[in-house]
Amino acid sequence: MNEFELIAKLTKSLPANKTVVTGPGDDCAVLDFGLPDKLFLFKTDAVVEGVHFTRETPPEKIGRKALGRCLSDIAAMAGTPTAALVTIGLPKNFDPEFVLKIYDGLNTLARTFDVAIVGGETTTNPVGIFISIALLGTLARGKQILRGGARVGDAIFVTGELGGSIAGKHLDFEPRIVEARWLADHFSIHAMADLSDGLAGDLRHILTASHVGAELLKTAIPVSRAAKLESRKTSLAKPALVAALTDGEDFELVFTVPGKDAVKLLDTWKQQFPKVKLTCIGKIIAGEGITLRDKNGVQKLDARGYAHFG
Amino acid sequence: MNEFELIAKLTKSLPANKTVVTGPGDDCAVLDFGLPDKLFLFKTDAVVEGVHFTRETPPEKIGRKALGRCLSDIAAMAGTPTAALVTIGLPKNFDPEFVLKIYDGLNTLARTFDVAIVGGETTTNPVGIFISIALLGTLARGKQILRGGARVGDAIFVTGELGGSIAGKHLDFEPRIVEARWLADHFSIHAMADLSDGLAGDLRHILTASHVGAELLKTAIPVSRAAKLESRKTSLAKPALVAALTDGEDFELVFTVPGKDAVKLLDTWKQQFPKVKLTCIGKIIAGEGITLRDKNGVQKLDARGYAHFG
Repeated sequence: MNEFELIAKLTKSLPANKTVVTGPGDDCAVLDFGLPDKLFLFKTDAVVEGVHFTRETPPEKIGRKALGRCLSDIAAMAGTPTAALVTIGLPKNFDPEFVLKIYDGLNTLARTFDVAIVGGETTTNPVGIFISIALLGTLARGKQILRGGARVGDAIFVTGELGGSIAGKHLDFEPRIVEARWLADHFSIHAMADLSDGLAGDLRHILTASHVGAELLKTAIPVSRAAKLESRKTSLAKPALVAALTDGEDFELVFTVPGKDAVKLLDTWKQQFPKVKLTCIGKIIAGEGITLRDKNGVQKLDARGYAHFG
Repeated sequence: MNEFELIAKLTKSLPANKTVVTGPGDDCAVLDFGLPDKLFLFKTDAVVEGVHFTRETPPEKIGRKALGRCLSDIAAMAGTPTAALVTIGLPKNFDPEFVLKIYDGLNTLARTFDVAIVGGETTTNPVGIFISIALLGTLARGKQILRGGARVGDAIFVTGELGGSIAGKHLDFEPRIVEARWLADHFSIHAMADLSDGLAGDLRHILTASHVGAELLKTAIPVSRAAKLESRKTSLAKPALVAALTDGEDFELVFTVPGKDAVKLLDTWKQQFPKVKLTCIGKIIAGEGITLRDKNGVQKLDARGYAHFG
């Protein structure tokens, strides 16, 4: 049994109850407590030393990233984050100042989005630091954007630039909370996800859930400067476009809107968020999986989200 | 800076917002989202291998305990648990069957209390297993029972028997969810907490928050059979009464009601919960801290919750 088989088996037998609108499998769980205008979003996410940060990472950025990742999931549902609990696992003989700085970074980001930190705990973890965050948010009833709503003919958009996040952006990205809510308020967003596993992987989640395929325009993918710089470092480096398609932790949004709304969206977005790039990268088509189009034709991305460029 | 100073410093500067009714420092955070009849409870708790269980603990009991601890905190507020997120940290090359069994134990307890498991994640933790649970619950508006409401003249009650939990009860205790809600519905409960750190420690939280003291009747403390057995094992063992006062993880309830209600409470409790012991162990008095009364007079418990018996 591999990890995916385990998760599939686990999630099949989980208890549900009458509050559950959307259980495991989307960016957040959606719960209904009977408020006339609101649903609730519930999400947890952990960062672990050696995986998501190192001992050399400034502690403020560790705290910021831990909360930011959860905020990005709330953004992917066009929700509003409200309250968080913070669990920190620490090696013995940790430096209390280090923990205070983790909280400094976390609290600063929380204040930016009016998120209350309402509790948590510190516990012992012999080998390194981990931070687990549980985040509760709300969603305007009727406005939830799941992964399964993409339709043939939709235009596919991404915010920001992609790839090379490990060079720094993974520690100080801006969760797209405000942008996502604006999108939900002003456009018919059919499907949305945040980019945590890389565009190819996260877009594929939308495609699978929506039973459709995607055709991306190779030259339209917004490749970040960091991905380009990285690709030039050695002859063995990942090509920049591959990095933009497969690097994790971009924490941008990918979403689909009816094709007829694409131009209006680009125009109004530019006025609303002049500093945040928005790019139409392709369209939803019948079928499955992702194809890349360039002047020579189309090319299929493999199932793991990796493309094999010549 | 020790751990308590660190936590004091951390909790002083945490961001709040208009939803926060009760922030860190009680058994759960209490949030108000504008539902006319309900408030929300939000709690996280972690169990760690080597601290809360060992590699030899049956996995079903690890899962059960992880959720049970959080349920006990919801009980301490007389709340109703609703939905949980589960984060499991695992060593590399873990056995998937072991994880499925953890979930079996957790899911079974969740079903008992109609708690939905709505998501979570598995992550890598090189040295051992940890499980962090985030639990969302509700509370009838106007029925919240905090730690700070004890008044002079209140009778102090505990459910169950205390001490020696490590012999087994810490793995299969029954969270007192039903009992706590019944108490809140039928009596004026002034203050309540669950017993996670031992009666002396948890009662002291109530006393500190309420600015009062407690006088306990030594012979009334319900000492568990496990604590008695343990005390007889060696001449160095903890006396059974000390174990009942200071052993952690009883997960029973300690609460205070107006003294005039004490007899009626005992009578109706016996009819309602014939299998769950309820004991009046003393009364709230002016002053601070805990004193123990026996036929020879009164004796003060020290500030750490440990009594030094001759």
